Amino acid sequence: VTRATTAARAAAAVSAERLQALFHSISEVGAYGRAADGRHGCERLAFSEEAHIAHQLFAEAARETGLTVRRDRIGNTFARLGPADRETAPVLTGSHLDTVAAGGCFDGAAGVVCSLEAVRAVSLAFRESGAALPRPLEVVAWANEEGARFPPAMMGSAVYAGSLPIEAALSATDSEGISVRDALAARAPGEGTQPLLPPASYLELHIEQGVELEAAGVPVAVVDGVQAQLAGDWRMIGREAHAGATPMERRRDALLGAAALITEVSGIAHAHPPGVATVGKSVAFPGSRNTVPGLVEATIDLRHPEERAVRTMAADFIRAGEACAAQCGLSFEFTERWRSPRVTFSPHLVDLCSRAADAAGIPALRLFSAAGHDAVNLAPITPAAMLFVPSTGGVSHHPEEFTEMNALVQGARVLSATLALLLG
Amino acid sequence: VTRATTAARAAAAVSAERLQALFHSISEVGAYGRAADGRHGCERLAFSEEAHIAHQLFAEAARETGLTVRRDRIGNTFARLGPADRETAPVLTGSHLDTVAAGGCFDGAAGVVCSLEAVRAVSLAFRESGAALPRPLEVVAWANEEGARFPPAMMGSAVYAGSLPIEAALSATDSEGISVRDALAARAPGEGTQPLLPPASYLELHIEQGVELEAAGVPVAVVDGVQAQLAGDWRMIGREAHAGATPMERRRDALLGAAALITEVSGIAHAHPPGVATVGKSVAFPGSRNTVPGLVEATIDLRHPEERAVRTMAADFIRAGEACAAQCGLSFEFTERWRSPRVTFSPHLVDLCSRAADAAGIPALRLFSAAGHDAVNLAPITPAAMLFVPSTGGVSHHPEEFTEMNALVQGARVLSATLALLLG
Repeated sequence: VTRATTAARAAAAVSAERLQALFHSISEVGAYGRAADGRHGCERLAFSEEAHIAHQLFAEAARETGLTVRRDRIGNTFARLGPADRETAPVLTGSHLDTVAAGGCFDGAAGVVCSLEAVRAVSLAFRESGAALPRPLEVVAWANEEGARFPPAMMGSAVYAGSLPIEAALSATDSEGISVRDALAARAPGEGTQPLLPPASYLELHIEQGVELEAAGVPVAVVDGVQAQLAGDWRMIGREAHAGATPMERRRDALLGAAALITEVSGIAHAHPPGVATVGKSVAFPGSRNTVPGLVEATIDLRHPEERAVRTMAADFIRAGEACAAQCGLSFEFTERWRSPRVTFSPHLVDLCSRAADAAGIPALRLFSAAGHDAVNLAPITPAAMLFVPSTGGVSHHPEEFTEMNALVQGARVLSATLALLLG
Repeated sequence: VTRATTAARAAAAVSAERLQALFHSISEVGAYGRAADGRHGCERLAFSEEAHIAHQLFAEAARETGLTVRRDRIGNTFARLGPADRETAPVLTGSHLDTVAAGGCFDGAAGVVCSLEAVRAVSLAFRESGAALPRPLEVVAWANEEGARFPPAMMGSAVYAGSLPIEAALSATDSEGISVRDALAARAPGEGTQPLLPPASYLELHIEQGVELEAAGVPVAVVDGVQAQLAGDWRMIGREAHAGATPMERRRDALLGAAALITEVSGIAHAHPPGVATVGKSVAFPGSRNTVPGLVEATIDLRHPEERAVRTMAADFIRAGEACAAQCGLSFEFTERWRSPRVTFSPHLVDLCSRAADAAGIPALRLFSAAGHDAVNLAPITPAAMLFVPSTGGVSHHPEEFTEMNALVQGARVLSATLALLLG
């Protein structure tokens, strides 16, 4: 039996029914905003009751598939096929089950569900070929990929990969001062197990959250890397004043300076194509109808495939912030929250993914990811790569986020074939 | 005894000590942000426990001064000197005791305290002259002048004057859906008494919340009228999208459109001097760092001495909102919340105030008010006028709002002299 044959068998063994059944059961957790056609959004903020239930559904499905489940201290759930030995590193594959506030059903969950089904299919293919699995296969559901309530994003994988100390992660707080430690303690606490061995490779399937696959009419992309990112918080500080009695020329209106900067931010992104720049949060204080705002609190998110371009955009942003503040008699404060470097995935593993798509007879593009993913945290410790499936209209972080079930199945087939090639 | 003599005696009878004692006792209610020099802000949102305590302190002080206190259904507190008869209309004077969130100590409370002291002083002056008071004097503390938690502003005086039905006022809700009815029921409910007779005149002393008195070095102004105002809510509606994976040209970023409009708002005010335009509240939703905002909710406040100019500014604003929305692929919604017409105070009463200042030997400017006041609601039902005292630096709706105690005393003296001339 050739490796390509096992890969094709692994691809063919993926069950659309099983995939769909688990995906739909997880999608019901945190469902909201159901439309007439039955589509809906999902809200499962990290460390919430909903996220916990989704992890439990995943764990149950993994146990039914014959996998052994464990949970670590930060709330990552691992499901292993094969012996828990200390000599053979596993191949790891997965994604996350948490969402942003008012998010969609596919971001994260698609990858976890496809990974479990791909692992099942690979094990069937090996059994059919009369071969034993040469190393364990492990499916992971990372905790807190979004960082929506508890920054930083990609927390669970960062702790796993050793780039974020567990104590720092547990001490991270939400806007109300509640810590990850407290939020985790409210549910079943993790068992404190550490990975037996670093994984031999890491694969992650995710929705594209962009439009290139849809535009090309192709169901799967092999991802070459992830763009660099810089995230920060900023404030414009002026002086509150009466909205009726303060002449325009005597105002130090924090919102006016913030508005000028928000406009500049868009210009900075346009000056550095294909970079993107986003002010996602912006609140004026005290937020009273008849008071000139004395303070605006906001965020900034800058991304570009080239790290140097992100640095330039950040410098342009800070300069623009200071200029907008000076123009309106305000002061400007900026606090960097995190930087993700540009990540280039393992060329060997990327190439293997492409060959797996060929073996499965599924067309696949090559793309560079615009969004950060847990694979970014895994790349420094093991060969890593990603697969994308299409996002209808590029919509994500929204109840209308959608991927055709057939595209998910095609993605799981390529993932399964890749695992087979890796093991074969 | 001439009227001018009684007026001078009434002015002289004002006690700085009594004025200061009551002002300080009310200022302690809701005090926050105490600076090294002992100055601080006040937060007494309408219908809160703090506002209720302030009304009680006023009522106690009024009773000690020999006045009869009653409270109406919307929470206005009235204190009357003289018989509660149905034949002689009282002269009414007062202001409010509620503040905006994170407000100052002087806006409103200054007028209530000065009014009570002025009424006491007038009654002393009449006793000294051996004359009986020809009509009752009534001091009022209006409920919910700011409208900070429960719009509309100037609610208590609007109900009193009959321009706002009591049921509409009681059914007004805050942003969490709590009604004025519920908030009032949580404290001592009012007795439901209606005014015995419409007042014969209305006088209100208030801080200027501007800089003209300070610039002129004059302690008191007689106010000719109040500028016209239009208040509304607006929304920019776009589409949420992933901040990393959505190219700039595919975004429908609600915050980008809102920022453009906020910049335009400032331009609209500058194009219509001496008009002012303020976006006091602005919040982007969902407010997540890595989501392009799909919605911004904000307010607009437009004011100008000429009503026609306010109408033009409002039309310009709506046109700009639609243009900014179109430019960013958004939709724009505007809801008008209230309009206050330009108010011209009673020329006879304004003239009387000026003559009272002369009789008291206190220099007084003539000003046009930039801020709305309860007097605006009284003007349609009775001759009304206002007195201003200086605001240091023009600062208001802020913990640093400040008026020298000596200026308050001078203001109370002119008010007392005006009451004496009105009665004499």
